[in-house]
Amino acid sequence: MKHSLQQIAEAVNAHLQGDGSVEVRGVASIPSASPTDLVFVQDQKYLSAALGSAAAAVVTADFAPTSSSKPLLIAENPKLAFARAARLLYEKNGALQQGRIHGTAVVHASVRLAPGVLVDEHAVIADDTTVGENTRIGAGCCIGPAVTIGRECEIYPGVTIYAGTTLGAGVIVHAGAVLGSDGFGYVRDARTGRYEKFPQVGSLVIDDDVEIGANTTIDRGALDETRIGRGTKIDNLVHIGHNCRIGENVVIAAQAGLSGSIVIENDVVLGGQVGIGEHARVEQGVMLGGQGGVLPNKILRGKGVAFWGTPAQPLRQYLRQLAVLARLGKKG
Amino acid sequence: MKHSLQQIAEAVNAHLQGDGSVEVRGVASIPSASPTDLVFVQDQKYLSAALGSAAAAVVTADFAPTSSSKPLLIAENPKLAFARAARLLYEKNGALQQGRIHGTAVVHASVRLAPGVLVDEHAVIADDTTVGENTRIGAGCCIGPAVTIGRECEIYPGVTIYAGTTLGAGVIVHAGAVLGSDGFGYVRDARTGRYEKFPQVGSLVIDDDVEIGANTTIDRGALDETRIGRGTKIDNLVHIGHNCRIGENVVIAAQAGLSGSIVIENDVVLGGQVGIGEHARVEQGVMLGGQGGVLPNKILRGKGVAFWGTPAQPLRQYLRQLAVLARLGKKG
Amino acid sequence: MKHSLQQIAEAVNAHLQGDGSVEVRGVASIPSASPTDLVFVQDQKYLSAALGSAAAAVVTADFAPTSSSKPLLIAENPKLAFARAARLLYEKNGALQQGRIHGTAVVHASVRLAPGVLVDEHAVIADDTTVGENTRIGAGCCIGPAVTIGRECEIYPGVTIYAGTTLGAGVIVHAGAVLGSDGFGYVRDARTGRYEKFPQVGSLVIDDDVEIGANTTIDRGALDETRIGRGTKIDNLVHIGHNCRIGENVVIAAQAGLSGSIVIENDVVLGGQVGIGEHARVEQGVMLGGQGGVLPNKILRGKGVAFWGTPAQPLRQYLRQLAVLARLGKKG
Repeated sequence: MKHSLQQIAEAVNAHLQGDGSVEVRGVASIPSASPTDLVFVQDQKYLSAALGSAAAAVVTADFAPTSSSKPLLIAENPKLAFARAARLLYEKNGALQQGRIHGTAVVHASVRLAPGVLVDEHAVIADDTTVGENTRIGAGCCIGPAVTIGRECEIYPGVTIYAGTTLGAGVIVHAGAVLGSDGFGYVRDARTGRYEKFPQVGSLVIDDDVEIGANTTIDRGALDETRIGRGTKIDNLVHIGHNCRIGENVVIAAQAGLSGSIVIENDVVLGGQVGIGEHARVEQGVMLGGQGGVLPNKILRGKGVAFWGTPAQPLRQYLRQLAVLARLGKKG
Repeated sequence: MKHSLQQIAEAVNAHLQGDGSVEVRGVASIPSASPTDLVFVQDQKYLSAALGSAAAAVVTADFAPTSSSKPLLIAENPKLAFARAARLLYEKNGALQQGRIHGTAVVHASVRLAPGVLVDEHAVIADDTTVGENTRIGAGCCIGPAVTIGRECEIYPGVTIYAGTTLGAGVIVHAGAVLGSDGFGYVRDARTGRYEKFPQVGSLVIDDDVEIGANTTIDRGALDETRIGRGTKIDNLVHIGHNCRIGENVVIAAQAGLSGSIVIENDVVLGGQVGIGEHARVEQGVMLGGQGGVLPNKILRGKGVAFWGTPAQPLRQYLRQLAVLARLGKKG
Repeated sequence: MKHSLQQIAEAVNAHLQGDGSVEVRGVASIPSASPTDLVFVQDQKYLSAALGSAAAAVVTADFAPTSSSKPLLIAENPKLAFARAARLLYEKNGALQQGRIHGTAVVHASVRLAPGVLVDEHAVIADDTTVGENTRIGAGCCIGPAVTIGRECEIYPGVTIYAGTTLGAGVIVHAGAVLGSDGFGYVRDARTGRYEKFPQVGSLVIDDDVEIGANTTIDRGALDETRIGRGTKIDNLVHIGHNCRIGENVVIAAQAGLSGSIVIENDVVLGGQVGIGEHARVEQGVMLGGQGGVLPNKILRGKGVAFWGTPAQPLRQYLRQLAVLARLGKKG
C-alpha cells in the first residue's frame, strides 16, 4: 500500500527532512531499490551509496547531513524505523477484512470463526475449534479439535495443530510446522525390554506475537503444559520437547533442539543447532552460541553473558581452552 | 473412557488398596489432578503431595503406608503401571471400529482397506496400497502407490509415504513425517563436475510398534532396503538415511541424524542431535549422549556403555579430557 | 522400461562384451538382483560375486576378464554408467506427456501450465504462477502466487512454495520441503525489549537440476535474494537462511544449517549437521566434515581442503589436537 513520507514519518516516529509528499510503495536494499522504494542506512559509511541509489528516500540517523539529494527520515534506530515502515507498507491495516471459507475447506459445524477469518483451500478445522478475528488459516492446514487460535494470526499452508492447543493473538506459524504433537516419553518394561508409551495428554499454549518457523515442531506436555511466552521468535526446524517453558522475547535460531521439561527465561538468545538436555534451565538474558550444548539439569546464568561450546561455558573461558588446544596441537 | 480402580488394578497388574469401585476418567500430574484423575508417585518423597492432591487415587509402590486417605494401586513399577492405566483410559479398546472414508479423500479403486479403517479429509491413497484393520489415515496424508500399512496404525495429518513402503502393525507416525523418500546418493562425473543421481529404487520397511516423530524423514534404500526394527521409538526431526538398519527397541531422540548404510543394533539409545557417519555400527545396548558424533565406518561397542563427544568416546574418558582442558584453560 | 544391453551400452557410453540383445528392466544390488536386473562392480573384489549373482549383466571396468559368464558393460566409471543406465530404465523419456489436472486440485484461472504438466490431488496453485512442460506438482502441494517453476521438475507431495519463488528446469523437491519462507530477522526495540519483524520481502531463486530433500527449508531473502546454484544437491532437513548464495554443484548433507547471508562457492561439500554462522564464506572446493561449525564472518579456503570441528580447522590440525587431548586425558 502506497504511503507518503509524511505519513510514514509520523507512523514510525521519525523526523522528516525534505519533501513529505513523496510517495513510496515498498522497501528495498540499496542496490535493488526502485524509485518507489524506501531504503535505510544504519552505518554512516553506506549513506552516500543510499543517496546515490534509485530509492525514493532514505531512513537514516542524525549523522546525515542537513541537506541531501533525497528526502530523509531521521530516526534514533533507523533499522527499527525501516522495519516499522515496511510493516505499514506491506501488512494488513488491522481493519476487519471480509471473511471467507474456501469451498474445498472442511470446517466442522461446531467451529467458531470470528469475523474476518480466511480459511484457504483444503484446510480442515475439526470440532470445537475457535478462530479469532482476521486470522488466516492457510491451504491444507489441519487444525483441531478443540484448538483455540487468537486474532490476527497467520497460519501458513500445511501446518498441523493437534487437539487442544492454544495460540494467542498475532501468532505467525510458517508452513509445515507441527504444534502440539505427542512428547517423546516411554517407560521401559524391564521384563520384556519394550518401551511403552507414557501418556502425552497435556497441552501446548503459545502466547501472543510468537513467530514459529517452517517445519518446526513443538510438543504438547505429557501431563501438564508446554508454554511459549509472548513475543518469542522461533526459527525453522527447531524442536521443543514436552513440558518446556519458554519465556518472553526469547530468540531461538534454526535447528535448535530442546528436550523435555526445560526452562528458558525471558530474553534468552539461543543460537542455531543449540542442544539442551532435559530439566536444564537457561536464566534471563543468557546468550548461547551456535551448536552449544547444555547438559541435563544444568543451569546457565548471567544476564548478557555469552556461553559457547559443549558443555556450554562462558565464552571467554571457552576461547581460552580453544587457544590452549591450538597451541598444544602445533607442538604435538 | 471411565474405569473403576478395580478394573484398572487388574489390567495393569497392581495391588488395590482401598475402594475399588471408585471410578477414574483420566491421568494427570499431581498439581493439575481433578477428582476423576489418577496420579502416580515413583519416588516416595512425592507421596504426601499425591495424597494431598485432588486426585481420585494414586499409583505407587510398596513404600506406601498400608492405610491412606485415598485408594492406592501398588505396583512394582508405578510409572509403568500408570502408563498402562492411561492407555486403558485413553486408547481405543481394540474392538473393530466403524470404518469411514471422508468424502473429500481420494482413494484409488485398487486400494484394499480392511474393516475399521478411517481415512480423513483430503487424504490421498494411491493405487495398490493396502491398509490394515482399525488404522487411521490422517487428514491430508499422501500414501502410496503400493504401500502396505498394518493394523491399528495411527498416521497423523500431513504424512507422506512414498511408493512401496511397508509399515507393520501398531505403528504411530506423527504429522509431517516423510517415509521412503529418495536417499542422498550421487555419482560425480569427473569431466563435467556435475553430480548425477544414483538410483534410489530400494524400499523402506518399518516393523510393528514403531513410533515416528513429527517431521522426521526416513529414506528408502538405494538398491536394497532401509529397515526400522520392532518397538523402536524415533523422536521429531530425525533423519535416517538410505540403507540404514535399525534394530529393535532402539530409542532415537530428536534431531539425531544417521547418514547412509548404518547399523544400529537392538536396545541402543541415541541422544538428541547425535550424528552418525556412513557405514558406522553401534552395537547392542550402547548409549550415545546428545550431540555425540560417530565417524564413518567406526564401531561403538559395549552393552550399557555410555559414549559422548565427537568423535564419540567412552564417557569417563571424555570427561577426563574435558577436565584436563578446563584446567589448562585456567592456566593458559 | 525394458532396454537391451546394446541400447544401454550406447546410452551410457560403455563397451559391450557379450550378447547385446539381452534385455534388462531394472537395476539392483548384487544380493537382491533378479534375472532382469543390471548390477555394477566398482571394485574388482566384488566381480566374482556379481558374476555369480542372478543379474542379467554387470556394469564394470576394464579389470574384468575378456570372457565371462554374463554380458558385461565396461565403462571408465562403472558407478556412473550404472547410474545413467538406471536413469534410462526408470525415468521419463523426455517426450511430452499427457497433461492432467486432478479434479480435486485448485488451480487459479491466471496460472499458466505448459503442456504435459501433472497437477495431483488437492494441490493448490495460486494466481500468476507458471509451470513448465512435463513438470509434476504432487498431491497437497501449495504453490504460489507468482511462482515460476521450470520444465521437467518433480515436486513431491506436501511441498509449500511461497509467493514469488523461482525454480529452474529439472528441479526435484522432496515431500514436505518449504521454499521461500520468511527469513529470521528482527529488530529489537530497546525501549520495550520486543522484537519487531524486519521485512522479509526478497525472493528465492533455485537454478536448474537442483535436488532438495524432504522437509528441508530454504528462506527467501530479506530485501534481496537467496540463490541456489545449478546442479546443487541438498539432503533432508537442511536449513538455508535468508540471503544465502549457494554456488553450483554444491553438496549439502542432511540437517546442515546455514544462517543468513552466507556464501558457499561452487563444488563445496558440507557434511551432515554442519552449522555455518552468518556472513561466513566457504570458498570453492572446500570440504567441511559432519557437525563442523564455522563462526560468523569467517572464511574457509582451499580447493580440496578438508575442514573439521568447531570452529572448523584443516583436518590435519584438528586431528593433532584430538591426539594431544587424548594423550592428556590418559595422563590426567
